[in-house]
Amino acid sequence: MSENSKKSVIIIGTGLVGSLCACFMAKRGYQVNVYERRQDIRTGKEVRGKSINLALSHRGRNALRDVELEEDILKTAIPLKGRFLHGINGGLKSVIYDPILKNCIYSLGRNYLNKKLLEATNKYSNIKHHFEHMLTKCDLSKGTITFLNLKTCEEIQETADLIIGADGAHSKLRLYMQQMPQFQYTQTYIEHGYLELYIPPEKSCKMQPNHLHIWPRCEFMMIALPNQDSSWTVTLFMPFKIFYQLTKKEEVIRFFQDYFSDAVELIGKEQIVDVFLNTHPSQLISVKCSPYHAGSKFLIIGDAAHAMVPFYGQGMNAGFEDCFLLNKLLDKNNDNIVVTLDEYTQLRVRNAQAICDLAMYNYLEMRNLVNTTSFALRKILDNQLFKLFPNLWIPLYNSVSFSTMDYQRCIENRKWQDNVLRTAFIITGLFIIISLLISRY
Amino acid sequence: MSENSKKSVIIIGTGLVGSLCACFMAKRGYQVNVYERRQDIRTGKEVRGKSINLALSHRGRNALRDVELEEDILKTAIPLKGRFLHGINGGLKSVIYDPILKNCIYSLGRNYLNKKLLEATNKYSNIKHHFEHMLTKCDLSKGTITFLNLKTCEEIQETADLIIGADGAHSKLRLYMQQMPQFQYTQTYIEHGYLELYIPPEKSCKMQPNHLHIWPRCEFMMIALPNQDSSWTVTLFMPFKIFYQLTKKEEVIRFFQDYFSDAVELIGKEQIVDVFLNTHPSQLISVKCSPYHAGSKFLIIGDAAHAMVPFYGQGMNAGFEDCFLLNKLLDKNNDNIVVTLDEYTQLRVRNAQAICDLAMYNYLEMRNLVNTTSFALRKILDNQLFKLFPNLWIPLYNSVSFSTMDYQRCIENRKWQDNVLRTAFIITGLFIIISLLISRY
Repeated sequence: MSENSKKSVIIIGTGLVGSLCACFMAKRGYQVNVYERRQDIRTGKEVRGKSINLALSHRGRNALRDVELEEDILKTAIPLKGRFLHGINGGLKSVIYDPILKNCIYSLGRNYLNKKLLEATNKYSNIKHHFEHMLTKCDLSKGTITFLNLKTCEEIQETADLIIGADGAHSKLRLYMQQMPQFQYTQTYIEHGYLELYIPPEKSCKMQPNHLHIWPRCEFMMIALPNQDSSWTVTLFMPFKIFYQLTKKEEVIRFFQDYFSDAVELIGKEQIVDVFLNTHPSQLISVKCSPYHAGSKFLIIGDAAHAMVPFYGQGMNAGFEDCFLLNKLLDKNNDNIVVTLDEYTQLRVRNAQAICDLAMYNYLEMRNLVNTTSFALRKILDNQLFKLFPNLWIPLYNSVSFSTMDYQRCIENRKWQDNVLRTAFIITGLFIIISLLISRY
Repeated sequence: MSENSKKSVIIIGTGLVGSLCACFMAKRGYQVNVYERRQDIRTGKEVRGKSINLALSHRGRNALRDVELEEDILKTAIPLKGRFLHGINGGLKSVIYDPILKNCIYSLGRNYLNKKLLEATNKYSNIKHHFEHMLTKCDLSKGTITFLNLKTCEEIQETADLIIGADGAHSKLRLYMQQMPQFQYTQTYIEHGYLELYIPPEKSCKMQPNHLHIWPRCEFMMIALPNQDSSWTVTLFMPFKIFYQLTKKEEVIRFFQDYFSDAVELIGKEQIVDVFLNTHPSQLISVKCSPYHAGSKFLIIGDAAHAMVPFYGQGMNAGFEDCFLLNKLLDKNNDNIVVTLDEYTQLRVRNAQAICDLAMYNYLEMRNLVNTTSFALRKILDNQLFKLFPNLWIPLYNSVSFSTMDYQRCIENRKWQDNVLRTAFIITGLFIIISLLISRY
């Protein structure tokens, strides 16, 4: 402990991942300074409409448990045991995520959770927050970082043993790292944007509780997640070109009545028209890069390292798992930061890129495949096999959401399952044909 | 002209593309201000070893011709009529690029050409150069750009009707554009680096003139291009991991004797060892992004928009073609910059991305495929068909290097040729089988 108390960490960002990371580092005994460009969200005014609701699953819970926060946070979270599908012709269907082990994911408001995590940091006397401090410069070779105090307009240069960027999808620290030789980097904006709508508590009795609601419509989809106050946050994901076609009040209402008729009454025409005509749909970015560390002390985690589209509900969970992994590696390497950063990149890049790919794929599944018979049959088959061989046949969604299996292994596992099934079908088919031929002659 | 003389352009960078672009814009009558971070290369001291020699081909010549520079520049360029392959066992082979129409590419030193282009800008009184001015800030929405005068440490904010970033693969203007919503961006460093060596004029008599020399060795390759002073610039491209394995004098010499035995004497052991042990191999970056413009006045061209690996010899040619296209579109749109920028992105992104892909593919061809029999047979077949149908069957290398066909069409064209040949082979094969069967019974 005495050795660790000399170690200093700077964390950039007090979002979900930055705040959790601060707890992890403080629990190690490190001196933690957290810098944040914005005001403290606990004192500033609340902003709505720019965040997708969050689904906490196994990896996130695992990390929260390590800093004794899981129980408290789960208390108010709303368990979701499956998807609730709204067909275009009014058909309704519940598809349970894990009918065998009954695992759930948990719906949480972003603001609520962020405040909870910030409060948790208060328990550590070795965490100091610096709100309204903007990163203005970073010297990766010298290991220094400069912030502008937005209240006093004073610039301060800082350094520490470890400098962690948890500053989100548009990370400024990553922008400096990107200028290093050999930094691989891709940012992709998908052609779909999203708008957020709202079902008030008084209408929520009409919504099947404890489900993630989906209105899959092939080219686009709408989803709804429950909030703690019994309201629901509704998100419509759709190609920008369709958003831009809907410019008149009547068109918007007609569109909703055509595609989401059962939701019109719950959301209310007035709100639908207001949001459509007065809000610009938000963008969805996916970021892949490598390495995650620079020099001997810089590291990016969470969305700064691997922003992903939100369709697997793993963005926050992967970010929390980053903190968990960093902490584990510091344990293993006796707080040797250089060795830890190198191992972190080795282990994390391929897994984070795998979940970015899965998240992209899951949009297709949610808006389209869930409607198909083959998808339903595969789900039944997967669940039966999972029941028979619980350690051998873990369905993809379960391995991603209800285990801590490496994301990359989740994909490999699924490919192996696909191969097994394909082979089994071919053998069965041949067997049937041969049986028929034998029985005939 | 009077309308155009009111239009102002800022160009960032006095490299090859920036300087040529300045000529194009000045010829239109625009007021041109060119900013460059470095000293004027015509007065500063020369740097060697950080540049690959250049091969000027059809697209580059086409652009130079438009501003009356082609003739002067071709005068001193060295025509290369084909590749000269050095086999590992000492076998030598000349493979002519275009045996039918006898088209050549032209070898030029980067510094020499850059000076020529800078001198050409002097002919225009409406071009003003600002050397040692570093881009420090850029406000894409306000349309302003700030430079720091490195001599006086004074910061100046500028604006213009059109602001063009020709500031290379590590473009600073692009870094600002990258932070715009919907900016797609990928930077890829390949796992191979390069070192430059040198064959002095007195040894050049042993080199087959008017060829691009290649020592293809599958995993790596060495090439040599002639300079105006009869010397040759030799470049070794190789995976970094092999470079890093060669750390001792004896290992380096052994490696060269094993793989490039005929070149050892030409380059000299001393130089080889000196360069290997005292130089860090340079990186190779490939950049793809979209759009190329931002707002109503910012544009990136050349490597800033589409840095590519150097294996098709098209980096400079594509950059020159950018200037040519921009000029053409300004003509077509009567100097309407907003419309021009939009059309420029529409036309240029897919073509530039196509040549980036081709350049990546050509590394494989140069270091490996040129050694294969199938490659040689295809080359013969392509040339025969080209001779028979000169307007229909243009081989890939010819369409890229000796035409101004859209890069994307060059690829489509090649795919079409592959399909035709595949179908022809199948039909011929079937025909032979059927003939044999008929003749037997």
